[in-house]
Amino acid sequence: MERVQAGHVPILGLQRDPNGPVRDGRFAGKHILSVKQFSKADIQYVFSVAEEMRTMVELVGTFDLLKGKVLACLFYSPSTRTSSSFIAAINRLGGGAIPISEVKFSSVSKGESLPDTVRTLQAYADVIVLRHHETGAADTAARYCKKPIINAGDGVGEHPTQALLDLFTIQEERGTLDGLTVTMLGDLKYGRTVHSLARLLTLFNVKVRLVSPESLRFPPGILEEVRAKGLQVTEHTSMEDVVPDTDILYVTRVQKEYFEDLKAYEAVQGSYVITSETMKLARKDMVLMHPLPRVGEISMEVDDDPRAAYFRQVQYGLYVRMALLAMVLGRA
Amino acid sequence: MERVQAGHVPILGLQRDPNGPVRDGRFAGKHILSVKQFSKADIQYVFSVAEEMRTMVELVGTFDLLKGKVLACLFYSPSTRTSSSFIAAINRLGGGAIPISEVKFSSVSKGESLPDTVRTLQAYADVIVLRHHETGAADTAARYCKKPIINAGDGVGEHPTQALLDLFTIQEERGTLDGLTVTMLGDLKYGRTVHSLARLLTLFNVKVRLVSPESLRFPPGILEEVRAKGLQVTEHTSMEDVVPDTDILYVTRVQKEYFEDLKAYEAVQGSYVITSETMKLARKDMVLMHPLPRVGEISMEVDDDPRAAYFRQVQYGLYVRMALLAMVLGRA
Amino acid sequence: MERVQAGHVPILGLQRDPNGPVRDGRFAGKHILSVKQFSKADIQYVFSVAEEMRTMVELVGTFDLLKGKVLACLFYSPSTRTSSSFIAAINRLGGGAIPISEVKFSSVSKGESLPDTVRTLQAYADVIVLRHHETGAADTAARYCKKPIINAGDGVGEHPTQALLDLFTIQEERGTLDGLTVTMLGDLKYGRTVHSLARLLTLFNVKVRLVSPESLRFPPGILEEVRAKGLQVTEHTSMEDVVPDTDILYVTRVQKEYFEDLKAYEAVQGSYVITSETMKLARKDMVLMHPLPRVGEISMEVDDDPRAAYFRQVQYGLYVRMALLAMVLGRA
Repeated sequence: MERVQAGHVPILGLQRDPNGPVRDGRFAGKHILSVKQFSKADIQYVFSVAEEMRTMVELVGTFDLLKGKVLACLFYSPSTRTSSSFIAAINRLGGGAIPISEVKFSSVSKGESLPDTVRTLQAYADVIVLRHHETGAADTAARYCKKPIINAGDGVGEHPTQALLDLFTIQEERGTLDGLTVTMLGDLKYGRTVHSLARLLTLFNVKVRLVSPESLRFPPGILEEVRAKGLQVTEHTSMEDVVPDTDILYVTRVQKEYFEDLKAYEAVQGSYVITSETMKLARKDMVLMHPLPRVGEISMEVDDDPRAAYFRQVQYGLYVRMALLAMVLGRA
Repeated sequence: MERVQAGHVPILGLQRDPNGPVRDGRFAGKHILSVKQFSKADIQYVFSVAEEMRTMVELVGTFDLLKGKVLACLFYSPSTRTSSSFIAAINRLGGGAIPISEVKFSSVSKGESLPDTVRTLQAYADVIVLRHHETGAADTAARYCKKPIINAGDGVGEHPTQALLDLFTIQEERGTLDGLTVTMLGDLKYGRTVHSLARLLTLFNVKVRLVSPESLRFPPGILEEVRAKGLQVTEHTSMEDVVPDTDILYVTRVQKEYFEDLKAYEAVQGSYVITSETMKLARKDMVLMHPLPRVGEISMEVDDDPRAAYFRQVQYGLYVRMALLAMVLGRA
Repeated sequence: MERVQAGHVPILGLQRDPNGPVRDGRFAGKHILSVKQFSKADIQYVFSVAEEMRTMVELVGTFDLLKGKVLACLFYSPSTRTSSSFIAAINRLGGGAIPISEVKFSSVSKGESLPDTVRTLQAYADVIVLRHHETGAADTAARYCKKPIINAGDGVGEHPTQALLDLFTIQEERGTLDGLTVTMLGDLKYGRTVHSLARLLTLFNVKVRLVSPESLRFPPGILEEVRAKGLQVTEHTSMEDVVPDTDILYVTRVQKEYFEDLKAYEAVQGSYVITSETMKLARKDMVLMHPLPRVGEISMEVDDDPRAAYFRQVQYGLYVRMALLAMVLGRA
């Protein structure tokens, strides 16, 4: 299998879209820390590579674009879903992984600082995927690390690869990002993914509708921020009013851990459950998304509806993470 | 190294037994959930592939039959032995693994259901090995998963790969399965492996002897089931009576966790210990097996006896698991 | 990529130093249990291979010298740093790893003995890296294991790969081991690494200075042992007296877990902190080392000083561990 030069030739001889973005290797050696670092052209770049990854996985499953590269998966707060996704991504590109999810037992528990930990791991690995419970941890790590850091979630801060895969899902499911009405539903206060997705959507011509109980409204600061960038946003409390005109329905999990009172949790948790009845209100081409895991926000009876895209969303995540790994390692 | 087509040509040019089973790829894309799904011909198929795996490992250690394939090792109740065996198996076939043994920290602990977890993992992996504490979990997972599920133990239910490796051990050690006297010893009530092995033995012409304390007798329901299928079974309490005529002595661990009372455990635990003295009663060609781990049921002084097959049994397990992976992935 | 014959040809066509040690494959199939097993010629052998590993990693990152080999990483007491280092090492040599750091959940917790565990793992893996909390565990494991065991730390006993990487760091940073003054600072009582390093240094023409608080002095028994072998050693309590003449300053972590009283810990912990002021006293070519993790013994302001070698030391560790793996597997 021939090896490709960084960003200059298509992966394994795929015919590349002549109208697609020029591959200038702009992400080679870069950290992926925040959605804020991505321009519209950057996102088109990521998606162009992610589509090639999709084609390659569908054709051959795995290929050796990153053969010999080693990924350190440093998870201070474990997330099977995200770490599995990155380990699968590096495996499908022919590279290897060092999974580190037992941070509580590690040097860190002996008092080692994050800067020392990443400076140790950069001696072993070519790229570090970091999940951390403290907001800003990825930025700190990046300041000390010569190898690319990919932020896989830091506290209530950023989770840029999730936001990119959410956006890529919309692109793949609908063929465009412009002209759509995107409805976000559920916990819009603590749901990190909807904040990041809203920021990315400011780059496109979309309408956003926010549906939540009063106690879980979208944070005013971020709302102001995205409106200042021209995003059309309206707030609602009733799901039934907005579902019929919705192109993308993005449902979030209401996280029990943010409630002091179990009753308050249950009241809110049950208030926006998507059922077969809800889907009858929706358009034939609506796309139903969820970052997963779900705990009842979408009834299992909806799973077989072709509009239910949340398991395909997982698959798109693999392609986006493969693309990001190849890009920061200078191979796409 | 040339790649082989599914089930049609021998692995890497090995001369295949012309009297062996026709390789029709019958397991491609199938789940491995229960010993009950295997006919005698199926077992011959598995063993024929497992013997090729043995030859290849002995010749070259590792080969690229499953290069590019990714195994998700999803262990809700951790088992170093079984997960290590599967990770070694996929490694020796050139593929990669996603080890997930920290299920308590994962999405599952956030309330995710098994169906959602396997539908997520099938986006990343080509095959899923599942261990779960609930009987029937593997069946549930299989209903929702498009990729093959291999049941690596579900509660007190099934552990089919263990039963197959036990049977393969007998085949390899004695050259046949027919005409043997198999004695099962120890905890026959809770010992999942002896139940599955007994079921598989109904396919062959063997005599089975069950030796246990009264409180740990083989479950009457399963006993009736295997007798109805024609298996000759007798029950005993004294080991000394049956050892001299035994071809295969299968010793099981008495699991402390099933006893409320430590004294009752100790009384039973010590009652059937295999020592050098026991081995003096046994035939020169007897095969001594144990699913491991042991906690004293076989004295360490027996380890150097050539009839002690329990560490070879571990090795045979690698070959059987390599065979099953190659088969469900359509490569054997 | 051509495969090389064990120890007979240079790795991937590298020009080998004609004055270097003859590669006779003397470590093929051997255990690495203690620094005491290494002669001066052995160490030159290890370092000669480690330098080739360094060259190869700098040139190509990863190469297939151990393609198809499987490493079992059996850690009874978890150490992210050491296990990551070995997993990276086998990955960069093209092999695979079975990480086992959850020993508390494993067969071991069901009462399995170390001899049984290693006899199980040798059926799956080609080499076993073992960390254990009990002194002597590696020797026990080696007695039962046909595959090479590499001791990655057993209790307060040995940690030979750390000692070898420490020595290799001195060699690489200063170009020689002879004629140097090596100062060891901090916890010299419980610090396993300084004991092993001192033993290795007896093979070379060096002066050793030991600086510690009274309560953490170097163990008299080991002091006597290394002096009997001709090592020139002096003991000190003041850092300032010895730093100016020091070639190698080896700082150790004061481990909180060894103190019953937090106050006593803090008094000692703060007594030998390396700061920019300390570095002003030091020679321009002094090499500052630390086995990491550190918890304040070296101020972060020193990190950018070119004499601060502790993160390079981590990198050298990768090369040494790659060398040891290749050697015991008969490939160097």
